[in-house]
Amino acid sequence: MSTDFQREGLEFAQKCFDDVRAMSLDSQGVSRQGYSEVETQVLEYFRKIGEELSLEISEDKAGNVWMTVPGKNRDLPALVSGSHADSVPQGGNFDGLAGIVAALCVARWMRKTNYQPERDFTVLMMRMEESSWFGKCYVGSLGMTGQLTDKDLALKHRTSGKTLAETIKACGFDPDALTTGKPVVDLSKMAAFIELHIEQGPTLDSSDTLRAGIVTGIRGNVRHKNIRCVGQTAHSGAVDKQFRHDAVLAFAELAYRMDCLWDEWLKAGHDLVFTIGVVHTAATSAIAVVPGEVTFCVDIRSLSQETLDGFHAVLVKEAEEVAKKRGVKFEFDGLISSKPLAIHQALREHLSKAAAEAGLKTKELPSGAGHDTVTFGGLGIPAAMIFVANQNGSHNPHEAMKTEDFMQGSEVLWHAVKDFPHEGFK
Amino acid sequence: MSTDFQREGLEFAQKCFDDVRAMSLDSQGVSRQGYSEVETQVLEYFRKIGEELSLEISEDKAGNVWMTVPGKNRDLPALVSGSHADSVPQGGNFDGLAGIVAALCVARWMRKTNYQPERDFTVLMMRMEESSWFGKCYVGSLGMTGQLTDKDLALKHRTSGKTLAETIKACGFDPDALTTGKPVVDLSKMAAFIELHIEQGPTLDSSDTLRAGIVTGIRGNVRHKNIRCVGQTAHSGAVDKQFRHDAVLAFAELAYRMDCLWDEWLKAGHDLVFTIGVVHTAATSAIAVVPGEVTFCVDIRSLSQETLDGFHAVLVKEAEEVAKKRGVKFEFDGLISSKPLAIHQALREHLSKAAAEAGLKTKELPSGAGHDTVTFGGLGIPAAMIFVANQNGSHNPHEAMKTEDFMQGSEVLWHAVKDFPHEGFK
Repeated sequence: MSTDFQREGLEFAQKCFDDVRAMSLDSQGVSRQGYSEVETQVLEYFRKIGEELSLEISEDKAGNVWMTVPGKNRDLPALVSGSHADSVPQGGNFDGLAGIVAALCVARWMRKTNYQPERDFTVLMMRMEESSWFGKCYVGSLGMTGQLTDKDLALKHRTSGKTLAETIKACGFDPDALTTGKPVVDLSKMAAFIELHIEQGPTLDSSDTLRAGIVTGIRGNVRHKNIRCVGQTAHSGAVDKQFRHDAVLAFAELAYRMDCLWDEWLKAGHDLVFTIGVVHTAATSAIAVVPGEVTFCVDIRSLSQETLDGFHAVLVKEAEEVAKKRGVKFEFDGLISSKPLAIHQALREHLSKAAAEAGLKTKELPSGAGHDTVTFGGLGIPAAMIFVANQNGSHNPHEAMKTEDFMQGSEVLWHAVKDFPHEGFK
Repeated sequence: MSTDFQREGLEFAQKCFDDVRAMSLDSQGVSRQGYSEVETQVLEYFRKIGEELSLEISEDKAGNVWMTVPGKNRDLPALVSGSHADSVPQGGNFDGLAGIVAALCVARWMRKTNYQPERDFTVLMMRMEESSWFGKCYVGSLGMTGQLTDKDLALKHRTSGKTLAETIKACGFDPDALTTGKPVVDLSKMAAFIELHIEQGPTLDSSDTLRAGIVTGIRGNVRHKNIRCVGQTAHSGAVDKQFRHDAVLAFAELAYRMDCLWDEWLKAGHDLVFTIGVVHTAATSAIAVVPGEVTFCVDIRSLSQETLDGFHAVLVKEAEEVAKKRGVKFEFDGLISSKPLAIHQALREHLSKAAAEAGLKTKELPSGAGHDTVTFGGLGIPAAMIFVANQNGSHNPHEAMKTEDFMQGSEVLWHAVKDFPHEGFK
């Protein structure tokens, strides 16, 4: 079932995606580095569309671009929607870009239908959200809210070695204005932030009917970059089983136990993902030597801090048991963690209602990856997210979103904007 | 209980070990490369002792040194005992050397006690047994039996790049004489070969009473150098469990299953060791990415070809099951194998009887590692081995053998030589 909103916007959205892709093609996919010429070019492309739609356009000191449809009551804080213009290197076209185009579709629909919202509706196009280039994520939104640090600005580009400060400066902005702890915009004029984004997993795409989702929360994580399992090397032919302290088999037992426990925790209803992304034996390991050392990393993510802490405790306990049983040691490096973000409850319910009014079935699902929404939500601004099905994951050239799916998600946004309560959310 | 043989030989053996260690010290342990000056120096040191004992000394075209106590009946083929003079780089002092000193202790005891054996007793000191330098093992004994190949001679030294042929030539021998398929010595004059060697595992050292062992067989192996588990990379936060094809967790389940099955096979009485010595994820693996590829090797060893084939079939079957369950693939590279060597049954029983007559309890145990004994046994010459307890494994600087244990093992050899049947073994 296609609506007027969807039919009317489809061609426009498709052209936006195609034009921006053409601007940022690389050898495999697209590359739009934050605070680069191509990112600026993308923002200018959308500014031009904003001008054609007579939107009020401004740029903040962090280089993010705001394009507003003025509301009837300009004293009310604005409802803001958007996402980031940058991409990872050799990434896909839709991560970030979809959220900008969705907000623009809503603004354009307002103009096409001569609709004036009660409060301002603002399309927010942010710079540099991806951490791939400098190791720091949310740079555009953190800079806008004054939350960058000198340490962040000193980070170096992964290939050129240029610092983040130099990169922001070369793009025409003052990096030192972004580390004061004070926002460079008036956040009290932001009633709420809604970000549409492609889902970066396959959940929605695996369903025929639930092609859009409402995000329930953004997963936090606990991580160890290096856990060492230390056993004892021995001759692989001459040493019988009872005398071995095989680090690989100890690692395998721990990983298998955690995999089984993960199933149990999922059955018990916990939100949880568990990944051992990297594992390797020592450089001196060899086919004829019982392995004495294995190094691996662990990434545990959940919407619940309790689940994160609980499953991490299970990891430590299981490691102790395996170590005792097999005469090996597990040496854990320091814990790295980031807290989960609870999505604003009332705003999330408002999005669900909007989807129902748009005649769309949606799925509630967590976001495993982080987004600019975390920046706003973390500052107490009501913030929520709409996910759209996409194929082949994200952060790779094969990322694929159907424009029809995108228009359905955008229509959820349109209804959420149209029906946004006069009194807003607290 | 120490015997005259043991008491009389202890100081002599200790001096041999100390002197040879002093000749071959490196920064960490000892290094005695085959066909090197230090190996030649070690052989000359023992020749001098042989001369003092009035042994008949000769050198074959492969550079191995034969030192004989003439028997009463010189028409009978000789009983030969010995081992190799070389070591691995930064290795221990006793691997190989113990077998030379043991045979020499027996020859010396004959001279000290004015004992003339029925048949010749020959101390055989072989060159280059270790594969660490050129990748080829048993070079001294294979050369002596004409079994080296041109391909072997073209092998390059792991650091200098010099070929094996050049190295043998520089040591004063003609490499081309060793690839003819014909032995450079008259093997019909060899009644049997007995090799004393340190055990390269901890079995004997873990016992207070069974400090010497009789080898039941030499394990063969089946190996894969590279098995690839191919799953699918995905975002470690955004992709839920049911959508994952995690190569590390698939590897872990396979390894854990094999570990459990290994226990079952051991309980069922099979001789079996199983090792995954090397494992690593792809170069592009990262903490926030579900791993899409793991590469690992497998080494299965047993005294029984049936066990080797059977457990390998289990590996393939389990891999298929895990692959099906988890939506991954296991890609096996070509199988590398070497057959087990059955130790000569009658000679082995003769060694057990000799130990009993020496008043020693011995343990029957397999050899997981290969030895020059394989060369002789493979040619149909009755060949058997005596193991002596040692600490800290072997092929490392921490290898440690108690000279008291060594003298007990040597006494088993002495009794085996003294009581060797006039008619020999077939």
